Amino acid sequence: MHIHHVYAHPHADSLNAALRDETDRTLTALGHTRTLSDLYAMRWKAVADHDDFAAEPDRHFMTAAGEAYRTGALAADIRAEHERLLAADALLLQFPLWWFSMPAIMKGWFDRVFTNGFGYNTAEHYGAGVLAGKRAMLMVTTGATAETLSGRGIGGPLDDLLFPIQHGTLFYTGMRVLPPFAIHSAWAVDSPGFARETKRLRERLETLAATDPIPFRTESSGDYDAAGLLKPGAERPGTTGFAMHTA
Amino acid sequence: MHIHHVYAHPHADSLNAALRDETDRTLTALGHTRTLSDLYAMRWKAVADHDDFAAEPDRHFMTAAGEAYRTGALAADIRAEHERLLAADALLLQFPLWWFSMPAIMKGWFDRVFTNGFGYNTAEHYGAGVLAGKRAMLMVTTGATAETLSGRGIGGPLDDLLFPIQHGTLFYTGMRVLPPFAIHSAWAVDSPGFARETKRLRERLETLAATDPIPFRTESSGDYDAAGLLKPGAERPGTTGFAMHTA
Repeated sequence: MHIHHVYAHPHADSLNAALRDETDRTLTALGHTRTLSDLYAMRWKAVADHDDFAAEPDRHFMTAAGEAYRTGALAADIRAEHERLLAADALLLQFPLWWFSMPAIMKGWFDRVFTNGFGYNTAEHYGAGVLAGKRAMLMVTTGATAETLSGRGIGGPLDDLLFPIQHGTLFYTGMRVLPPFAIHSAWAVDSPGFARETKRLRERLETLAATDPIPFRTESSGDYDAAGLLKPGAERPGTTGFAMHTA
Repeated sequence: MHIHHVYAHPHADSLNAALRDETDRTLTALGHTRTLSDLYAMRWKAVADHDDFAAEPDRHFMTAAGEAYRTGALAADIRAEHERLLAADALLLQFPLWWFSMPAIMKGWFDRVFTNGFGYNTAEHYGAGVLAGKRAMLMVTTGATAETLSGRGIGGPLDDLLFPIQHGTLFYTGMRVLPPFAIHSAWAVDSPGFARETKRLRERLETLAATDPIPFRTESSGDYDAAGLLKPGAERPGTTGFAMHTA
């Protein structure tokens, strides 16, 4: 496989940096090839603005974005990420969970790269689209404990917290999303904990091609009506909210 | 009331810009005072990094952040937002929903302003904390239709999509969060639609002090055990996931 790894952490000696390097070693040992976008090291521009299209600031934003995508006039760093994504069989997205979501620099990677015509305003979505068939996996560290991010935890279940990313963004653009690799109470990972977690990470990377994706329902499954509503009775009994969208 | 309005949209002639100005006029007419942080206009720095603390890049990130907060050494733009927040009775956060979340520049406002010691690592949270008692309301425009963001919609219910912000961030730091003001299919708002939406916005601003907040359960309510798990049977019958955390 060829893998694109997008990484966001500000601190060079962090647990995340060690996991990034372990990922690199493991993928190489498995015979995979990989590209790395280390967003902090690249000083990735986080803010989507008119400069991305060399457009006048009074241009309608989405219209200018779509036009620049079609004419190849997007900023070079965005085009480079498009090429890396299109060349990859799988995408790894690694970041610490900040305020129950991505750090701004990673959100800005999506805002800018998943632009009009590439990421949205496409003919197909939710299980189809420009990135159809590619695999994706989040690698997330949380300061919060596993309990507070469990089903009854005060922070909310991690799967639901990640739904906007896993379902609304990665699956939306056609990717098959594997269950996330998560490390909780990341501040408390000591040396034995680190050995245990890196072993668990290696196992996830070894099974990257074989792991069943989260069974999100595709838009073309026939489960949704023309307005995008799940048809009555299509849900698994007792499910509500986000959970209705997994088959 | 004194209101702090944080605003993020890249396009000066947008629907959001018109709503921002309408907000300004309405608050003034109501006799409120207000401050505005127009993040794009301010060229707000979105990325939280060591420069925010004038720290060496090899310092542990959270530790350096907390130390800078305690010693008053945070970047001037962060300290200015702290002052504006602490001076306010209510916070308005206005942005277009991008990838089911905030634009990176707004996420970066939280990442940098809600720093260690101010926003987290505090003695109290979830209904208590440095911003306790202040009101907060999101003002959100979505490209998606109301149907796709409703209970059975393919995008997921808007309330759940906003949970990481409304519960995990605003309520976490002590604020009382009002139901969001949302405009769906924002690209299709024509002139009569605009008149209707601005009237609806004015009504929400007129009732800012009186509107019941979302009844999130406080951490001190007795509904959670010491590990942060909702006690068995505490939920409203039939609720799961995020919905369990409203009383």
